Amino acid sequence: MTDFYQDTIVAPATIPGTGAISIVRISGPESFRAVDAVVQLKRGTVSESDAYTIHFGEVFTDGNRLLDEVLVSVFRAPHSYTGENSVEISCHASSYIVSELIRLLLSAGCRLAEPGEFTKRAFLNGKMDLAQAEAVADVISSNTSASHRVAMTQMKGGYSKELSSLREELLEMASLLELELDFSEEDVEFADRSRLVALVDKTAAHVSRLAASFQAGNMIKNGIPVAIVGAANAGKSTLLNTLVGEDRAIVSDIAGTTRDTIEECVNLDGVLFRFIDTAGIRETSEDVEKMGIERTFRKISEASIVLAVLDGSTDSSSILNDLTLLLHRIDSSSQQVILLLNKVDVLSQNDINKIVSNINNIVTSLDLKANIILLSAKQKIGIEALKKQMSQRQKDLVSDGDATLVTNLRHYEALKNAASALADVHTSLLASTPTDLVAEDLRRAIASINLILGSDLGLSPETLLHNIFQKHCIGK
Amino acid sequence: MTDFYQDTIVAPATIPGTGAISIVRISGPESFRAVDAVVQLKRGTVSESDAYTIHFGEVFTDGNRLLDEVLVSVFRAPHSYTGENSVEISCHASSYIVSELIRLLLSAGCRLAEPGEFTKRAFLNGKMDLAQAEAVADVISSNTSASHRVAMTQMKGGYSKELSSLREELLEMASLLELELDFSEEDVEFADRSRLVALVDKTAAHVSRLAASFQAGNMIKNGIPVAIVGAANAGKSTLLNTLVGEDRAIVSDIAGTTRDTIEECVNLDGVLFRFIDTAGIRETSEDVEKMGIERTFRKISEASIVLAVLDGSTDSSSILNDLTLLLHRIDSSSQQVILLLNKVDVLSQNDINKIVSNINNIVTSLDLKANIILLSAKQKIGIEALKKQMSQRQKDLVSDGDATLVTNLRHYEALKNAASALADVHTSLLASTPTDLVAEDLRRAIASINLILGSDLGLSPETLLHNIFQKHCIGK
Repeated sequence: MTDFYQDTIVAPATIPGTGAISIVRISGPESFRAVDAVVQLKRGTVSESDAYTIHFGEVFTDGNRLLDEVLVSVFRAPHSYTGENSVEISCHASSYIVSELIRLLLSAGCRLAEPGEFTKRAFLNGKMDLAQAEAVADVISSNTSASHRVAMTQMKGGYSKELSSLREELLEMASLLELELDFSEEDVEFADRSRLVALVDKTAAHVSRLAASFQAGNMIKNGIPVAIVGAANAGKSTLLNTLVGEDRAIVSDIAGTTRDTIEECVNLDGVLFRFIDTAGIRETSEDVEKMGIERTFRKISEASIVLAVLDGSTDSSSILNDLTLLLHRIDSSSQQVILLLNKVDVLSQNDINKIVSNINNIVTSLDLKANIILLSAKQKIGIEALKKQMSQRQKDLVSDGDATLVTNLRHYEALKNAASALADVHTSLLASTPTDLVAEDLRRAIASINLILGSDLGLSPETLLHNIFQKHCIGK
Repeated sequence: MTDFYQDTIVAPATIPGTGAISIVRISGPESFRAVDAVVQLKRGTVSESDAYTIHFGEVFTDGNRLLDEVLVSVFRAPHSYTGENSVEISCHASSYIVSELIRLLLSAGCRLAEPGEFTKRAFLNGKMDLAQAEAVADVISSNTSASHRVAMTQMKGGYSKELSSLREELLEMASLLELELDFSEEDVEFADRSRLVALVDKTAAHVSRLAASFQAGNMIKNGIPVAIVGAANAGKSTLLNTLVGEDRAIVSDIAGTTRDTIEECVNLDGVLFRFIDTAGIRETSEDVEKMGIERTFRKISEASIVLAVLDGSTDSSSILNDLTLLLHRIDSSSQQVILLLNKVDVLSQNDINKIVSNINNIVTSLDLKANIILLSAKQKIGIEALKKQMSQRQKDLVSDGDATLVTNLRHYEALKNAASALADVHTSLLASTPTDLVAEDLRRAIASINLILGSDLGLSPETLLHNIFQKHCIGK
């Protein structure tokens, strides 16, 4: 345990005023003394308690008025989340009790923790590396199976190991170059440069693959962006309500689940789909309307999956016009289109066959891959088929299977920098650039990876750490 | 420990998706087995763990995917909140992790707890009486020092003791009457009826005082209702914003505090004041406007404190008209008026003196008690004086000091019934009614007190208990 901090911090680890129980966390060298000053244990004191024990106690305020009966959990350094002496106090979830309890602990010498400061201390005390510490916030905010899997891999699993082994490879190359440098006066290229180039290329490919995974990782973390596109009365809202409505019912199975954050999101098979609000695309000719269409198309370009809702009850030519207009603007290299022929409940089989055949002609002529699903958003026909298609398309978009996905913008930037530095190393090696210049490029790549892991941050990492941890919630 | 329940319940004790930590609670005979099926402790199992110990463990889902690292707290019957074997699992506050963890525990044989079921079990297992169990919800929802004090007294302090000693007194009277009944064939009034009458009256007075405290108790629990009354531009909104705005700043000191519930409430000196929305009272003559004024007056009648905001910048006669109109409608027996002469910053001392003197004449002629505070809501002049007055008036309204306050409507009804039964006992005793009829009235009084404490609930208390505990939050 290092001693970065001499002070003892306190914060609520649950939101006061919600739920049945609230937890107040204390960490730092004076944790036990501060809690002993505030909580009267039934037997003994926190200071003389064993690690990993729970104690019943009473807290008094205003002299001798009972504030609450609490449970005190004792953690001793280094075997705690932060690596420091820590205490968790479990009290009734009253906002008054929690704020009063914290006030008493502040009087006893604690200070209010900054957001993410418990996790920051865990990092500084060597309990986890920086990438893992950052992933804690992602684990907490993960609300689907997929986003949880990615966040948990980053917090506990392969991500840090993968980065560490990348770093080892780069350090090995650096030591080979150092060797060459030591003998440089003899004007001998000591290291086998062709072997070095192969090594660099292999590592660079790995780094680039990680950087490229950011797009997929970001989708998993924040939801696959989906645009529902179609003319004004095509049934876009009904479709959205059907998709979101069913999901809401599932989410509210567990009472008290907050629903604000899942507005217009659907969790299908453990993956979050996030709907982008778009206006109709029917309008044409006039300038103002053209601007509207352009805006809609810009919105659509943000989507990874486009659900094109075609109004089966309107005349066939306008359906096909709308569709052609839309399909010309789709970027088939990065966007998936699912065609939905809506209102099939009011169409004859003959009509359906005719429209489907026309649509297929257009799709084929544009050389696109786009299934047609026969839908009635109102009668809930075809919804399961649509969900299956969306899940399938998501797998096409995020095809890496169990491979590591980068979800953190800071890491993405660092990986891009590392990739660019390694590209420079490659060029320099082939151009027989002096060894010391090659070594400098290599050090840039190493520094980028170090920045992710939080190793060798140098003398003043405070700004970096502050920026990282201020995004965490308080009490973690 | 009784065995009312053979099943084991689980629920989140914190709202998933908020805060840093979430707690999942399990209680019942199969708690340890269920947790052992879901959590792999680093060492040993929950079943073989000592009470009051904490264990690090891992939860896996989908076969062998790490769901979370958790801390498991072990409580053994009867030394737990419910009196049963219980476990608390502390995990990251991700809604996905919490719902998945609960899903796994349900698969392991638990069932989802009903609202308040942990506390209901604590009651049924004799850990607390019914009045205390009901107060748990009040303790959790208490958000001021005053409402907390009342709730805590009910949960842990004197309230149940007071009711129990009332019950003892009634039982003693009943046994005196029984004695008389046993000897009734000898036609002797064995018990000293005049002593009995004195006893009954003393107890009846106590019961009535408790019932009467409901009004004050309810105010403390839900906030003292305050109406800000005045003409359209008198400065009502500015005043409300000034009062509420400062309070908001205090409340938001602790990050994450939910603010929705304190909308238009002010916490002064630990007491909650709740503002009632009222329209202006200036308008007259026309029918529609008259209806509006009546509605405003009905609203004002709900207030315990009326803040009359007088616009010092308008002509003196309209100020006095408005004031007279208002004061005639105040019920001085239950309502407190504070007069605020607003906008004094634009008045000369001479003007102020003149208006104050005129107001005093009106107040005196109506035989009212109403201070005048010189105010500028905009310049924040007189705000402290107003707050002091409000605190003082609250003390006049809730004058009982440290006496017990009843806050629960169910208890209030039971106490009223007990008081009415005791009045019947009093009448019967004086009228030399046959002892068995007197005894029946007395039993009614005892039954009412039993109903509050939850003693001798009879054979089918399920409906009563269901109604009581369904108002509790889940997980408590």
